[in-house]
Amino acid sequence: MPEPTIDTGNTAWLLISSAIVLLMTPGLALFYGGLNRSKGVLNMMMMSFSAMGLISVLWFFYGFSLAFGTDTGSVIGNVGDYLGTKTFLGEGDLWGATAENPSGTGIPLYVFMAFQMMFAIITVALISGALSDRTKFGGWLVFAGAWATLVYFPVAHWVWGGGWIFDLGALDFAGGTAVHINAGAAALALVLVLGKRAGWPRDAMKPHNVPFVALGTGLLWFGWFGFNAGSELTADAITGLAFINTQLATAAAVLGWLLIERIRDGKPTLVGASSGAIAGLVAITPACAFVAPWAATVLGLVAGAVCALAVSLKYKLGYDDSLDVVGVHFVGGWIGCLWIGLFGSSSVNALVANDGLFVGGGVKQLGIQAASAAAVTVYSFAVAFALGWVINKTIGFRVSKEAEIDGIDLAEHAESAYDTTPTGGSGGAFAMAGIKPAASAEASAPVSEKISG
Amino acid sequence: MPEPTIDTGNTAWLLISSAIVLLMTPGLALFYGGLNRSKGVLNMMMMSFSAMGLISVLWFFYGFSLAFGTDTGSVIGNVGDYLGTKTFLGEGDLWGATAENPSGTGIPLYVFMAFQMMFAIITVALISGALSDRTKFGGWLVFAGAWATLVYFPVAHWVWGGGWIFDLGALDFAGGTAVHINAGAAALALVLVLGKRAGWPRDAMKPHNVPFVALGTGLLWFGWFGFNAGSELTADAITGLAFINTQLATAAAVLGWLLIERIRDGKPTLVGASSGAIAGLVAITPACAFVAPWAATVLGLVAGAVCALAVSLKYKLGYDDSLDVVGVHFVGGWIGCLWIGLFGSSSVNALVANDGLFVGGGVKQLGIQAASAAAVTVYSFAVAFALGWVINKTIGFRVSKEAEIDGIDLAEHAESAYDTTPTGGSGGAFAMAGIKPAASAEASAPVSEKISG
Amino acid sequence: MPEPTIDTGNTAWLLISSAIVLLMTPGLALFYGGLNRSKGVLNMMMMSFSAMGLISVLWFFYGFSLAFGTDTGSVIGNVGDYLGTKTFLGEGDLWGATAENPSGTGIPLYVFMAFQMMFAIITVALISGALSDRTKFGGWLVFAGAWATLVYFPVAHWVWGGGWIFDLGALDFAGGTAVHINAGAAALALVLVLGKRAGWPRDAMKPHNVPFVALGTGLLWFGWFGFNAGSELTADAITGLAFINTQLATAAAVLGWLLIERIRDGKPTLVGASSGAIAGLVAITPACAFVAPWAATVLGLVAGAVCALAVSLKYKLGYDDSLDVVGVHFVGGWIGCLWIGLFGSSSVNALVANDGLFVGGGVKQLGIQAASAAAVTVYSFAVAFALGWVINKTIGFRVSKEAEIDGIDLAEHAESAYDTTPTGGSGGAFAMAGIKPAASAEASAPVSEKISG
Repeated sequence: MPEPTIDTGNTAWLLISSAIVLLMTPGLALFYGGLNRSKGVLNMMMMSFSAMGLISVLWFFYGFSLAFGTDTGSVIGNVGDYLGTKTFLGEGDLWGATAENPSGTGIPLYVFMAFQMMFAIITVALISGALSDRTKFGGWLVFAGAWATLVYFPVAHWVWGGGWIFDLGALDFAGGTAVHINAGAAALALVLVLGKRAGWPRDAMKPHNVPFVALGTGLLWFGWFGFNAGSELTADAITGLAFINTQLATAAAVLGWLLIERIRDGKPTLVGASSGAIAGLVAITPACAFVAPWAATVLGLVAGAVCALAVSLKYKLGYDDSLDVVGVHFVGGWIGCLWIGLFGSSSVNALVANDGLFVGGGVKQLGIQAASAAAVTVYSFAVAFALGWVINKTIGFRVSKEAEIDGIDLAEHAESAYDTTPTGGSGGAFAMAGIKPAASAEASAPVSEKISG
Repeated sequence: MPEPTIDTGNTAWLLISSAIVLLMTPGLALFYGGLNRSKGVLNMMMMSFSAMGLISVLWFFYGFSLAFGTDTGSVIGNVGDYLGTKTFLGEGDLWGATAENPSGTGIPLYVFMAFQMMFAIITVALISGALSDRTKFGGWLVFAGAWATLVYFPVAHWVWGGGWIFDLGALDFAGGTAVHINAGAAALALVLVLGKRAGWPRDAMKPHNVPFVALGTGLLWFGWFGFNAGSELTADAITGLAFINTQLATAAAVLGWLLIERIRDGKPTLVGASSGAIAGLVAITPACAFVAPWAATVLGLVAGAVCALAVSLKYKLGYDDSLDVVGVHFVGGWIGCLWIGLFGSSSVNALVANDGLFVGGGVKQLGIQAASAAAVTVYSFAVAFALGWVINKTIGFRVSKEAEIDGIDLAEHAESAYDTTPTGGSGGAFAMAGIKPAASAEASAPVSEKISG
Repeated sequence: MPEPTIDTGNTAWLLISSAIVLLMTPGLALFYGGLNRSKGVLNMMMMSFSAMGLISVLWFFYGFSLAFGTDTGSVIGNVGDYLGTKTFLGEGDLWGATAENPSGTGIPLYVFMAFQMMFAIITVALISGALSDRTKFGGWLVFAGAWATLVYFPVAHWVWGGGWIFDLGALDFAGGTAVHINAGAAALALVLVLGKRAGWPRDAMKPHNVPFVALGTGLLWFGWFGFNAGSELTADAITGLAFINTQLATAAAVLGWLLIERIRDGKPTLVGASSGAIAGLVAITPACAFVAPWAATVLGLVAGAVCALAVSLKYKLGYDDSLDVVGVHFVGGWIGCLWIGLFGSSSVNALVANDGLFVGGGVKQLGIQAASAAAVTVYSFAVAFALGWVINKTIGFRVSKEAEIDGIDLAEHAESAYDTTPTGGSGGAFAMAGIKPAASAEASAPVSEKISG
């Protein structure tokens, strides 16, 4: 029973885009989980899965209103517009859910709401990669909800919902500022609050399962087509441009990262190929609909190479950004955001008001892009730092040193990732039923005694 | 060369929905495989993969006819309508495959047939989670084919194909009765026929690979959008409602399950988050297009919490439902089915003839929902029990105790899940070529001597 | 802002088809990686991931022009038509990227270009399965780029771009000749150039992670719906036929392979079920839109059984096709290609000019099919052999025996797939930062001293 205004093709595209963007978060969990040491893989994945639970509900009840409700002073959307609780109280109808929304797309409101929900989820989950092996799960939940409310929902409004960054003329097709710089800046703030992992950087802390990293990368790459090309909201020629630019930048970034590894370390690695792909995906995200394919390819090559170098910075500057959220998402987000000011072209997309510096324009768009990226950097960093500080001083944000060394999975979740004993361990089964996983805890217990972190 | 009646948007949506529902079964195999002990993971996954093989073929040759052929006495579809063998014998054309079917959707018959095929496959595969570590593969194949023929095909007709449950006015949007209660009741019956695993409940039998469980959950969550929102068959506003309700219920169920774990066990687990997600997905399945989003959110919270408690029942009642098919699919299916009688609303979807008890209606729909769920429970349980009993008495349904303790993978499939020796073991490679995997069998052999199950 | 000629439904279908075909390559990496021994899994996966990087870029810059540019002498497309560098040099516009292309489909040019790009990537990646544990990564990169340029791009033109095989009247819906026979013949050539792995066939070389194999199969099966049904380019009744034929053939091939294993080896395996699925998917690829569903089912059964037998040939003939690229892709591709000559039917698809031998026609189409398959076999084998020979004589194509025995992952990539030590090893972290993974290398080092390959 389609309404007259519904375009079934556009709706089909945005429905499946929403689904594949949802799949990115389990993909991210696997990517981060594989990069982590085996004793903290479950805690790492739990941060993504809990974001899928928590942020979905917040988004429906008030986040979507704050981000996409009627603009108030260029700062925030009207919380009453789509307030989920209204229908709970019997006041609201379904907000004209059967009508086309946004106007001109031919898609129903709920589909747009679902699509944008997936962005909120993964932006929060992205932060977690910096926090591995030492973050209390309760602290994470509080941070996730508060940061989404105070940072992601408003920033999404600023960039896409008619707020001041939008008014400024900044271009961010699918989330260079709102997603990647935003998450990267928050990650850096939390790393400074939490401090280094015990043993870092002395211990190598190598990925425990590289095939997981590669598979996670594959799922992210796949879902990113929904993220980027889905952001057009409709299935048209610009969607095709965003799609092929996403592929070209990602492919080139794989090559760029491997080249740096080959030169610097002597050997190209699969972790490098995977990280390069993510760097390319991040960098093309804001720019995918605004630059020509050749410029997307060059962007990928640059982003892959620069991020490969940027992830070494943490060793020099001494911050333990465990899985390189800053080096990949923050740096990659900035590169992509500025790229629009360098190569954005009105002949590619009429939405580009000022041609980029290297394609016949001036520095105007570059300035706007830098200002928007800087604003999101400062705001997200400041609020994340404050939130982290408060959480740390109140309920606590970091586990004990013993828990960290013995493994956060046992300490925070009473489970371990792998059990290959024929009987399946001696305690604690699926759903537990009150039995303590004593044997596993014992097996790991001596570690903190042997190691002085 | 589209026919005039084809709607390309709706067809695109149902094509991709079919594909992602197919992916749910490998996702389920990974979810179940990860929950299982390592010595039985391949047998567990084989039950899903063999269902993908067997049920597809049965569906084409007669299952689709029985489920969706012209109704005969409200009991079964006409087997001749879409009989795959007819074309083999040269009698049939392609059943007007190029015409729109079902009427009003603008999709070709084959696409609808493919979409429904994926439901038949996964319903059968769901049952296997209860049977781990002790079920003969030959017995499983016979059961799978017989249960699909005697139970799934008719029940799908009753619920969706114009049969008596449909006539009764029961609402089941995407398979609360036909899929989850159906599979859960059959699982319970088979558990009673097969008996407990050796060592249960003394041994913990913990999941051997929790990241697999989480990834399997991610793939199931992803595919479920096709399962639920695809069941509208078209890409419209109700599809959007089904989509967002699926997400909200699942998200809330993750929180509900984790809350119960936190209170009961002290720690929230990733296995719990994953199980909660599945419980939410199951519960929203029948209700996703009939309730408002806030009611879907509450449903998820309730389903997550109740199923978290329900999976403990097996320890109290003493049935070894290995991976909690009863606790999650049977219980979750019932909750979702009744929820329509409580919160189903004609203002949400005009197909709701009687408003639910808590949204201004009476108990009428609740009664219909309960009757339909009870009927499917009794029918599926009875036929599954009878089939299991006959298989057990004839070809045998349970492996020997030695095989079970040494590991069913070696006993039934002559392979083991993992091999990290540098040479890749000393016998039996890919495709075997007649070489026996002697070394691996020897390596595991002592287990049954050491353990008295 | 869709152009008047854009069909949003068809465009949505081809966009998502492109995305799921891209996902096939990480799926293939996991499938091959799981089948491999643990010491070479990363190198195996790197061959797929590097193809995603390299071939994407080549495709954009000249591959798409060679394959789908204006035909020149039935041999090659005009390299200038879509030359990516033209826009770099400021000569080109976006080639009318906003216009419908190919004509009659209602999809934008970029979407078609992206869809076909994914085919080029996976065809190259398929070859790598034959090369495990012994191939220099640099040699692989050179081979991949050269073979794509000299073989895949021209052959795609011959088959689909208006070249001589197309003119001959050969039918290949989604890549029996252009993809599977092509890759299989190249794999055989390289195996002959490279020689056997150390220890083959004495060592069993069993799969190191069978759940990975099964999950990879699931991802491939999923993506193959985009590969086959997407090749219609539009969402119509023929798309539905291609979809259901893909499912039926694959399902039947699982049963066919398991049946052979049961008879020959006594036990059906999950590796067998997975391999059977791939064999069915390969065989139906060229035929999926040209035969009736019952003929697709029989094709799957035959392909599963024949390929199960064909993979043993390498032991008899003495070539080390490590992961059975020849036995599955080459043999399966031939079966599917010939099947069109046997069961292709004009009543199923009007594009079938000559009915197949067993459905009322003569041998004409069968002859054309055999000629096209033979031509691709000879051409791909010859060029791949020459390329391999030259690479081997110049930069070297095979690693040293020590590197092979100790493990190619450490030798070529300085990383190992798994690390479950609590500290994450003692050297070489994510992105390395110059630290050598000394401990891991040492741990594996003694292997080459203990084993004489």
